[in-house]
Amino acid sequence: MRKSLSVNEFIQLIDGNLVGESDEKLSGVASLQLSRPGDVSFLGNAKYASQVNDSLATLILVPIDYDQLPANNQVFVKCESPNLEFQKAVEVFSPPAVNFSPMIHPSAYIAPTAQIGKQVHIGPNAIVDEHAIIGDQTKVCAGTYVGQYVQVGDGCMFYPNVSIREGCVIGNHVILHSGCAIGTDGYGYEPQITGEHIKLPQVGIVELGDHVEIGSNSCVDRARFGVTRIGDHVKIDNLCQVGHNCEIGKGSCLMSLVGVSGSTKIGRLVAVYGNAGLAGHLNVGDGATILAKAGIMKDIEPGDTVMGAPAVNKNQFMRQTLAVQKLPDLIKKVKMLEKEIAALKS
Amino acid sequence: MRKSLSVNEFIQLIDGNLVGESDEKLSGVASLQLSRPGDVSFLGNAKYASQVNDSLATLILVPIDYDQLPANNQVFVKCESPNLEFQKAVEVFSPPAVNFSPMIHPSAYIAPTAQIGKQVHIGPNAIVDEHAIIGDQTKVCAGTYVGQYVQVGDGCMFYPNVSIREGCVIGNHVILHSGCAIGTDGYGYEPQITGEHIKLPQVGIVELGDHVEIGSNSCVDRARFGVTRIGDHVKIDNLCQVGHNCEIGKGSCLMSLVGVSGSTKIGRLVAVYGNAGLAGHLNVGDGATILAKAGIMKDIEPGDTVMGAPAVNKNQFMRQTLAVQKLPDLIKKVKMLEKEIAALKS
Amino acid sequence: MRKSLSVNEFIQLIDGNLVGESDEKLSGVASLQLSRPGDVSFLGNAKYASQVNDSLATLILVPIDYDQLPANNQVFVKCESPNLEFQKAVEVFSPPAVNFSPMIHPSAYIAPTAQIGKQVHIGPNAIVDEHAIIGDQTKVCAGTYVGQYVQVGDGCMFYPNVSIREGCVIGNHVILHSGCAIGTDGYGYEPQITGEHIKLPQVGIVELGDHVEIGSNSCVDRARFGVTRIGDHVKIDNLCQVGHNCEIGKGSCLMSLVGVSGSTKIGRLVAVYGNAGLAGHLNVGDGATILAKAGIMKDIEPGDTVMGAPAVNKNQFMRQTLAVQKLPDLIKKVKMLEKEIAALKS
Repeated sequence: MRKSLSVNEFIQLIDGNLVGESDEKLSGVASLQLSRPGDVSFLGNAKYASQVNDSLATLILVPIDYDQLPANNQVFVKCESPNLEFQKAVEVFSPPAVNFSPMIHPSAYIAPTAQIGKQVHIGPNAIVDEHAIIGDQTKVCAGTYVGQYVQVGDGCMFYPNVSIREGCVIGNHVILHSGCAIGTDGYGYEPQITGEHIKLPQVGIVELGDHVEIGSNSCVDRARFGVTRIGDHVKIDNLCQVGHNCEIGKGSCLMSLVGVSGSTKIGRLVAVYGNAGLAGHLNVGDGATILAKAGIMKDIEPGDTVMGAPAVNKNQFMRQTLAVQKLPDLIKKVKMLEKEIAALKS
Repeated sequence: MRKSLSVNEFIQLIDGNLVGESDEKLSGVASLQLSRPGDVSFLGNAKYASQVNDSLATLILVPIDYDQLPANNQVFVKCESPNLEFQKAVEVFSPPAVNFSPMIHPSAYIAPTAQIGKQVHIGPNAIVDEHAIIGDQTKVCAGTYVGQYVQVGDGCMFYPNVSIREGCVIGNHVILHSGCAIGTDGYGYEPQITGEHIKLPQVGIVELGDHVEIGSNSCVDRARFGVTRIGDHVKIDNLCQVGHNCEIGKGSCLMSLVGVSGSTKIGRLVAVYGNAGLAGHLNVGDGATILAKAGIMKDIEPGDTVMGAPAVNKNQFMRQTLAVQKLPDLIKKVKMLEKEIAALKS
Repeated sequence: MRKSLSVNEFIQLIDGNLVGESDEKLSGVASLQLSRPGDVSFLGNAKYASQVNDSLATLILVPIDYDQLPANNQVFVKCESPNLEFQKAVEVFSPPAVNFSPMIHPSAYIAPTAQIGKQVHIGPNAIVDEHAIIGDQTKVCAGTYVGQYVQVGDGCMFYPNVSIREGCVIGNHVILHSGCAIGTDGYGYEPQITGEHIKLPQVGIVELGDHVEIGSNSCVDRARFGVTRIGDHVKIDNLCQVGHNCEIGKGSCLMSLVGVSGSTKIGRLVAVYGNAGLAGHLNVGDGATILAKAGIMKDIEPGDTVMGAPAVNKNQFMRQTLAVQKLPDLIKKVKMLEKEIAALKS
């Protein structure tokens, strides 16, 4: 089913001149390093020139002034802008664009008290519960659940099998990927000496700002009371957890498998890399960078870059890491010094 | 859609005396530190008194004997118990309570051999498969799947888009949050030299005790044979993984992004903090505490508190961490000692 | 509902001779260590003989030549092959096999342009969207979404509430567990100085090879362009994340909570243990082993075994870890040496 073109068919679609010939059929696109036979690739930046010869791509788009010859099984197309022509190739080989046109699928359930905007798509088996409001041009795909009293803005895209719990407020142009869970209960208990834990009511909500995107199977817990607040333009990757009553400032980014514990406040334009974890009730300043796998146990100053668990400033972490690598030698050295001192003393 | 009250409307609902005045509309509740204009907050504990003046809350509930004046844009309400009055405010501004009343939605699928208790809620597009049993007052929300031969007790709450696989046994008053997956296959293969892996049949089940709560997108794998057992009152946060044949004792708590590998046995009243990971076939004693990001590679004694990866006793870990922070200086010092010894020798 | 047999009923099903007697009802199977009263267990390997006496199992299958006596509350069954007889016991007490027979449930939605193979199971409320192709003998369980233009091979098993996005290509005999999300958008933005992030179109696909198995709530992102490629016989555990444009070679294994960042290439027969994380654009050689919680920031050589964050060779990591444990003592020792040198100098 994937599209397959001969080299001659392909170059009809591209501005450039063919160098070499090949009977291989073209069926995809990839970077120079990840290409396989049948792929179209490109040299978009001179610093990757050394990868051209080793690439398994069948056809490579190169600049007009590129002076090497194609390797065996390669053909080149010399063009003014390999970047632009590659973009055309991407379009040729991409899967057909999906079509979630405005409609309410007959198998969807829309509660009688729900309000649905204009040009909305509600997919098969999707559910919009009592008193929910869906803005114009928003798409609620198959199997997604929009809870009671949820308010959704305009132009949102909720992919299949998303769950949004009651009372949450979603801005405009928000993208939620499959399996993400918005507004689930925060983790809050009053532990008893008997081994029981009395559940603290979690009666707040989640508010997502405009242009927020949240990855697949990520979770944002509702506030114990009040609001868990995700600011405009925040981008959260897959498998992240944001605890109750957190606040994440405008334009901050959380990469995959990040956990943020309850009531922590992250400023604007903060970058949190993969698998970092933050304890609760902390402040992370604007523009801070938290590197991969960091464990944050105290406040982070604006603009600081931290690493390690417990996290310290990146430069300090690198010094420590290097020092630890020298540690086995240091231990030997100290043993030698002990002997020398003993010798000196006797 | 969020409720909005004037200060005068709000104080009708509260026992206390207004200090100051404000035209700001009240529309939410929050702690002193996380409040924004329009929020009601409270001073429930004298140790937070220093936060009152900097709070952006519009209205703050303070004790009768609190002698400071409101800052600009603040009003106070002096009351006998700020905690109790704040609870009223939380109720005023919380989203309307959800209503999952007893009913079987016409779009749900209940297999002919399933048995449904009294006063049960089965939401839109939920599925109760062949031979499953649902106890009284249990709620199975939209899109949730209850597999063949699953037994569910009384008073459970399964939020939307939960999956429970065949044969699992769920106690009473169990809460499962959106996206959690109970009884999926354990990760068990017989690796072949050819690069193939022969799948070992996973024919056991999962048993969840009474009052268990499991967070969104968490997974508990079925036993290879026998039972993966989660004890009464165990509370598991979002995005956790419990492997096949594990056993977790009464009242233990797993915070977010924790992984427990197969056949590990966790005692009673154990606390496992965020992003800790446990290898397989281990024993964790009663009352142990595993701190955030710990990597557990051997048994943990009852009552011990451990940290680090590989984990050691917390005090040892703190000593080591401090020592590593001093390490770059130690290396310099040893170099100096070498020189001094060389000088002494000559 | 779990099956319950008397000891006498049980031994009718087993080849062997009873030693001792018990009124306890048998209702399950477990290993010697994890057994509880009512369980059947077995001594399949002489090295576990010391566990027999302490086991809480009611009935233990032992070899014919095992010469110890049962403890209180235990009975033995002496048999030629305890392993084989235990397998029978597993079958006796396992939940009934599930029955997902070929059929299209009337509540499922099959788009008019979708093509469905022979002997296919499409469960309640499952969705097969426009132009999707489902191979013979494949099972699409309840609530699962198969997107537009998706191609699925023969003999696949998609458990409930899986989401597969448009255009992805799934091989034969692929198992996808509940909540897993295939083909969701990669995390790719062009950050703006204003705090906005322009989303880069993610127009590639995911290709899963034959015999791939992916655990519950795991995510594989579609390529930015081209293909995110999971090779034949790759086994991915629960709660893993594979970024856009990654490539994972034949027979490699990812244990739970692993994250692989975009464009990283993992060779064949690589084992990645729980909660390890890999940065983007890296190469991991064939046969490498990445141990639990490792943080990979540079390429890994074929066959290497690495540990730590940042990861180093396992032996180096173990030496470093031991050295760090000695570090507080080393600091004391250096202080002493300083004093001795000062004494020598004066």
